[in-house]
Amino acid sequence: MPIDPSKALGAPIQGGSFRWDRDRVILYHLGIGAGDPPTDPNELAYTYERNLKVLPSFGVIPAFGSLGGVGQVPGLQFNPALLLHGEQDLEIRKPIPVEGEVETRGKVAGIYDKGKAALVVLETETTLKGEAEPLFVNRFSLFLRGEGGFGGESGPPAGNEAPNRAPDGTVESKTLPQQALLYRLSGDKNPLHADPEFAKMGGFDRPILHGLCSFGVVCKAVVDHALGGDTGKVARYQARFAGVVFPGETIVTSFWREGNTILVAAQTKERGTPVITNAAITVRG
Amino acid sequence: MPIDPSKALGAPIQGGSFRWDRDRVILYHLGIGAGDPPTDPNELAYTYERNLKVLPSFGVIPAFGSLGGVGQVPGLQFNPALLLHGEQDLEIRKPIPVEGEVETRGKVAGIYDKGKAALVVLETETTLKGEAEPLFVNRFSLFLRGEGGFGGESGPPAGNEAPNRAPDGTVESKTLPQQALLYRLSGDKNPLHADPEFAKMGGFDRPILHGLCSFGVVCKAVVDHALGGDTGKVARYQARFAGVVFPGETIVTSFWREGNTILVAAQTKERGTPVITNAAITVRG
Repeated sequence: MPIDPSKALGAPIQGGSFRWDRDRVILYHLGIGAGDPPTDPNELAYTYERNLKVLPSFGVIPAFGSLGGVGQVPGLQFNPALLLHGEQDLEIRKPIPVEGEVETRGKVAGIYDKGKAALVVLETETTLKGEAEPLFVNRFSLFLRGEGGFGGESGPPAGNEAPNRAPDGTVESKTLPQQALLYRLSGDKNPLHADPEFAKMGGFDRPILHGLCSFGVVCKAVVDHALGGDTGKVARYQARFAGVVFPGETIVTSFWREGNTILVAAQTKERGTPVITNAAITVRG
Repeated sequence: MPIDPSKALGAPIQGGSFRWDRDRVILYHLGIGAGDPPTDPNELAYTYERNLKVLPSFGVIPAFGSLGGVGQVPGLQFNPALLLHGEQDLEIRKPIPVEGEVETRGKVAGIYDKGKAALVVLETETTLKGEAEPLFVNRFSLFLRGEGGFGGESGPPAGNEAPNRAPDGTVESKTLPQQALLYRLSGDKNPLHADPEFAKMGGFDRPILHGLCSFGVVCKAVVDHALGGDTGKVARYQARFAGVVFPGETIVTSFWREGNTILVAAQTKERGTPVITNAAITVRG
C-alpha cells in the first residue's frame, strides 16, 4: 500500500537552511503580481529595495524546500504528477525581516483518507539562525489524488466559512500570462506550472498557477485593501485551494471582517470558479 | 574639469567575476518580456529550464558590473542622475552556456565631446574561467549629460542606418508595467528605473525602462522573427539608444535583411518616438 500511516505519521523531515536578501523578497512579490502600477508607493514598497516591506505569505518560501523530503518518507509513496496543494496554514510569530538566514525542521503531522485521495499534513517550524523561537510555522496539506481508501480518518472540517452576507470588500488581481514562470523562480519548480505535457499528465489542459502563488495574490489583496498595506498585522493566514487558476486569469478576492478575523474567499473572474475558500487572516492586535 | 581625457583614456576597470545558472538566464529572459504566451514552445525555451536557450543579449549581464568602476576612474567625475546609456556594441565570440562563471576586464576605450554631453566608451572582455579567449566583448557607450565642452573629438558617426525601403518585418513587443522592476533583478539597480523622485532629478516624469532592457526586447524580436528563434546565429549586435520607453509601452521593432547583416530600428507604438536606431545584428555563418 503506497500510503501507510503507521510508518509515515510523525516522521521527521529535514527542511534545511535558507538564506534570502531583498532581491529574493522583491522576486517573490513580483511573482505574486506586485509592481503594477509601478509608480504607486504601495507597489514600490513591495518591489524596490528602499523601504521594502515583506508580505506575510513570503513565510511559505523558506519552508518550501521541506516538501522535497516528503517523497522520501517511508509509507508515503505517490505519483508526483497527481499531487495538488490542498491547504496552507501559516502562522507568523515575529516580523519577517527583509533579509535573513533560517533553519526549517518538519514532520508529518497528519494523514487523512479522503476517499479518492490522501491528505498529508506537513508541519514545519522555521527559525532565524541564532534564535530559539520560530519565526513562522507552516502546515502544508498535500492532496494526493488516487491514494485514498486506506481506511484512515477523514480529518477535521475546514472551518472559516464565508458569512452569508455581502463582503466588506472585493479586489480584482489580474495575473500575468507568465505569472507561473516568474513565481517558479521563488523555488517551486514543479513542471505542472510550466510544462504543457506534464500538465496533461496531471489532468489539466495547460499549466496551472501554483496554489501558493494564488495564496500570495490573495494575501496581498487583503493586506492592501483591508489592512491599509500594513504587512505586520497578519498573525495567521489559513486557506484551502479549491480550484485552479490559469496564468493570465483574474483572481477576485472577497473579504469579511469578523472581529479580529478577516474571512476570505477568492474566485476566477473569467470562469467564476472557486480558487481559495475556507480562508481567514487573523489580525495581530 | 570633471572630464579629463588625458587622465581617463585607457584607464583599466576591474569588472570582477560573475556566476550564473539557469534561473539567472530565465530571470533575464522574463525581464526582457519572454514567456507570453507561456504555452508557446519558443517562449518556454526562454523561460523553462528544459531545453533552455540563451538570448545573445544576455552577454551584457555578466559584464554590467564593470560600469560600477567608471565613477572611480580619475578624470571621470559626473552626476550619475544625468547618465544615460548611449550605445551598446556586443560581440558574441562563442555560444553562451546556460550556466557559467566568468571574469571581466575593462578599460576606458574612448572619450568624445558631444557639446552638451560627454560620451565615454567602456570596453570589456568577458572570459569563461579556465579559458583564454573571450566569450563576449562589450562596448558600453555612456552619455554624460552636462559634461561636454572639454574640447575633445566628437567621435565616429553611428553607421547602421536603416535602408530607405519598407522593412522586411515588424514585431510588436508589449512591455509590462512592472518590466523595469523585474529587469532590475538582473543587476542594474539604477534608481532611475524605479524611483519616481530620482527619475524627476534625471529629467523624466516617471521611471524609464533600462536601455539594455529595450536592447534585449529588440534582440528577441529579431532572433524570433528573422532568425527562426536560433539564438546561436548572432555574432554581433550594435545599437544606439535614441529615446526612452516608459514601462508598459509597446516596442515596435523593424528589420531589414542586407546580406549577412540585419539592420534594425525600434520605436514606441504609443508615442511613435525612436527607441533604438543605427542598430545591426551580424549573422554568424
